Amino acid sequence: MTESPATLEVAVLGAGTVGSQVIRLLEEQADDFAARAGARIRVVSVLVRHPDAPRDVEIDPALLTTDAATAIDGRDLVVELIGGIEPARTYVLRALSQGISVVTGNKALLAAHGPELYEAAADSGADLYYEAAVAGAVPVVYGLRESLAGDRITRVIGIVNGTTNFILDAMATTGAGYEQALFRAQELGYAEADPTADVDGLDAAAKCAILASLAFHTRVGIDDVEVEGIRSITAEDMSEASFFTQTIKLLAIAERRVGEDGREGVAVRVHPALLPTDHPLASVAGAYNAILVEGEAAGRLMFYGQGAGGAPTASAVLSDLVAAASHRVHGGHAPRESVYAHLPILDPGSARTRYQMRLRVEDRLGVLSDVASIFARHGVSIQSVHQRDGRGPGQAVIVIATHVAREADLRAVAHALSQSPAVREVASTIRIESDDPRSVVPAAD
Amino acid sequence: MTESPATLEVAVLGAGTVGSQVIRLLEEQADDFAARAGARIRVVSVLVRHPDAPRDVEIDPALLTTDAATAIDGRDLVVELIGGIEPARTYVLRALSQGISVVTGNKALLAAHGPELYEAAADSGADLYYEAAVAGAVPVVYGLRESLAGDRITRVIGIVNGTTNFILDAMATTGAGYEQALFRAQELGYAEADPTADVDGLDAAAKCAILASLAFHTRVGIDDVEVEGIRSITAEDMSEASFFTQTIKLLAIAERRVGEDGREGVAVRVHPALLPTDHPLASVAGAYNAILVEGEAAGRLMFYGQGAGGAPTASAVLSDLVAAASHRVHGGHAPRESVYAHLPILDPGSARTRYQMRLRVEDRLGVLSDVASIFARHGVSIQSVHQRDGRGPGQAVIVIATHVAREADLRAVAHALSQSPAVREVASTIRIESDDPRSVVPAAD
Repeated sequence: MTESPATLEVAVLGAGTVGSQVIRLLEEQADDFAARAGARIRVVSVLVRHPDAPRDVEIDPALLTTDAATAIDGRDLVVELIGGIEPARTYVLRALSQGISVVTGNKALLAAHGPELYEAAADSGADLYYEAAVAGAVPVVYGLRESLAGDRITRVIGIVNGTTNFILDAMATTGAGYEQALFRAQELGYAEADPTADVDGLDAAAKCAILASLAFHTRVGIDDVEVEGIRSITAEDMSEASFFTQTIKLLAIAERRVGEDGREGVAVRVHPALLPTDHPLASVAGAYNAILVEGEAAGRLMFYGQGAGGAPTASAVLSDLVAAASHRVHGGHAPRESVYAHLPILDPGSARTRYQMRLRVEDRLGVLSDVASIFARHGVSIQSVHQRDGRGPGQAVIVIATHVAREADLRAVAHALSQSPAVREVASTIRIESDDPRSVVPAAD
Repeated sequence: MTESPATLEVAVLGAGTVGSQVIRLLEEQADDFAARAGARIRVVSVLVRHPDAPRDVEIDPALLTTDAATAIDGRDLVVELIGGIEPARTYVLRALSQGISVVTGNKALLAAHGPELYEAAADSGADLYYEAAVAGAVPVVYGLRESLAGDRITRVIGIVNGTTNFILDAMATTGAGYEQALFRAQELGYAEADPTADVDGLDAAAKCAILASLAFHTRVGIDDVEVEGIRSITAEDMSEASFFTQTIKLLAIAERRVGEDGREGVAVRVHPALLPTDHPLASVAGAYNAILVEGEAAGRLMFYGQGAGGAPTASAVLSDLVAAASHRVHGGHAPRESVYAHLPILDPGSARTRYQMRLRVEDRLGVLSDVASIFARHGVSIQSVHQRDGRGPGQAVIVIATHVAREADLRAVAHALSQSPAVREVASTIRIESDDPRSVVPAAD
């Protein structure tokens, strides 16, 4: 056993919103952190690109450096908050190779190079922590990595992107269209000038890959995730949803199920979905995040909280830092990312889901029968049909909800409908995520 | 460093519903557990009172013993699922004193003798884990003990007793009275024949003490908790609540705040409270549990899931077991329960809360003025008044919601009202737990 150091030296890479908060909180609550970690945690270097740039929190200029080696080498702990793949990857590997434990909030890096980093950490005996990479302050990484280590996870389904949740929530509550809600989100600082990564679901996909890897002990990369964003959701989709006491959320879904070849595998996808308003995720408002985890023994658990922002993300970074620091002092290490399960990634077309389709049709005898026969021909069973007058004379709107069916078959139905002379337009097709009726009934205290 | 053992020997004390599930899952998923813990986990002894009693899961008779020393001595890990103070306390101390790590689901033991057990664990270097003692599978102990170790908790507020939540939920959704809902809960196995520990809030109080100790690094025992149960809640209270778009929940509340002497302290209480229906805890249905944690940096987090039942509780026990086993193999230990904060426990009378009172009064000129003057005289500010005709002629009902006031002043108001000739009856006084308007607005991804 090495001697317990009285002070642990920390390098913070990046001094943006989160980095500034981390530095501030470590200083303000230094005694609390020392009590929790068993040693004082002192920031001794801060890697920045521009030492003179304005910052949220004043940082002692003597700590600032633009040289990675100066910042990192020989430290006890490194906090990486630069974001993006490079140079973050090089810096993190530099630290891990020296046996320096790393705390990062970098979802892109984890989703793209997770296995390489886990391996580097295991090789040198360093810790790699990344709670802040998924859902900010919400401790779902902890939940999956440690506190559900005694269970077998079947499904993770979550709202993991605050920007899109803010936009969809604004559409649902104000009746605004997508563009208008996006503009509002940009005005309030919830969406960036270029919102692509959020609204096209890429941010959620990176988090989905990380969650799936953790939940199923299997390598899942961002390219394995089938992604559909929220650009196509209209005000009409939202008011239709409300008519059926539903709402629309962008969901990240990772599940373990039996594939078409009879073997168990992992399916990962991000897409908008209709939820009944009494679904636990339906009431997650504004920029909040929430993740439902279903375990064979635990049943359904939900983690809920602020998925982004300087202080909440800093809170996640700091709890990881306390864990890593405590291991420095007392021995032990973070759980190793064991990918022992090696489950195959299932083909998205084999997914089984429910769809709700809204069609504009000719209002004439036999149209419904024509439409219904298209569903039947592709083996897709209809659960409910709602027909009403359309906007123009001679037009009608049909809203059809299907039973669970193969995703590929549902796509074939949508294609056939769009070709049918009876159908003027397939106005929308949205997946339905309904509460799993098989979920365990909770027992009493 | 000691050599990594290939197999860890576990003693399970108690083979009831939870113990049986633990034994079953350890056997069924032995390979998964070995991969996670770094060693095989094998149950080698099961302490029972009656070896021939019928059980949920068949247990190899060779493992059964009625002798504690035979069961415990020399094992690597002990799982205590006997419940109650004695002999559980003696057994747990016996294990800890030998350096054997203990996983327990015993809330009564923790709430009464926590500090003694923490100390015994720290002295011998053993781990003491107890996720299953609070809210079953919901990883709130983990959350407070580890994943929020980088934050300063200000408040924990939760629904931690499934039996009372089932009863109140049934009253709210069916209009049933308390007795009828309790009977239904007993029929379904959600409440015991003697429901005292649940309905009088004692079970929730034990959990509240454990949560407060963890959140505030301060010794809090069950006797520190001010407790009020749900027996006095009537069908009329519930329908009144619904009229004001509220519902009634039994809440466990632990908060850090400044006491009347200007010093910071901890306040802990369990009582029924009115919640607006859009409060995150209001929609927690049936026998589910949910705990809101407010951190200075993290903002508001919620943990939700099944608070009881064999399998969910077993899931919590097993994740603790994996953590303890992993420390055996790789070194390190559970976070030590550091009570470094030593905050004083605040007097319940000094708590600041809001009340809703329902009064039956004479329907005559000046009554409202008489009532209002009683509030004013005790320095309690009225937020809203709702008056309507009462049941009989010449009667009226007044529902008054107060602003935040000292609990002691509110009690004095209730007493003065009951003595006033204008008031026929103080039909109910229930605290209001409204959403904290100061809570941080979440930022975007």
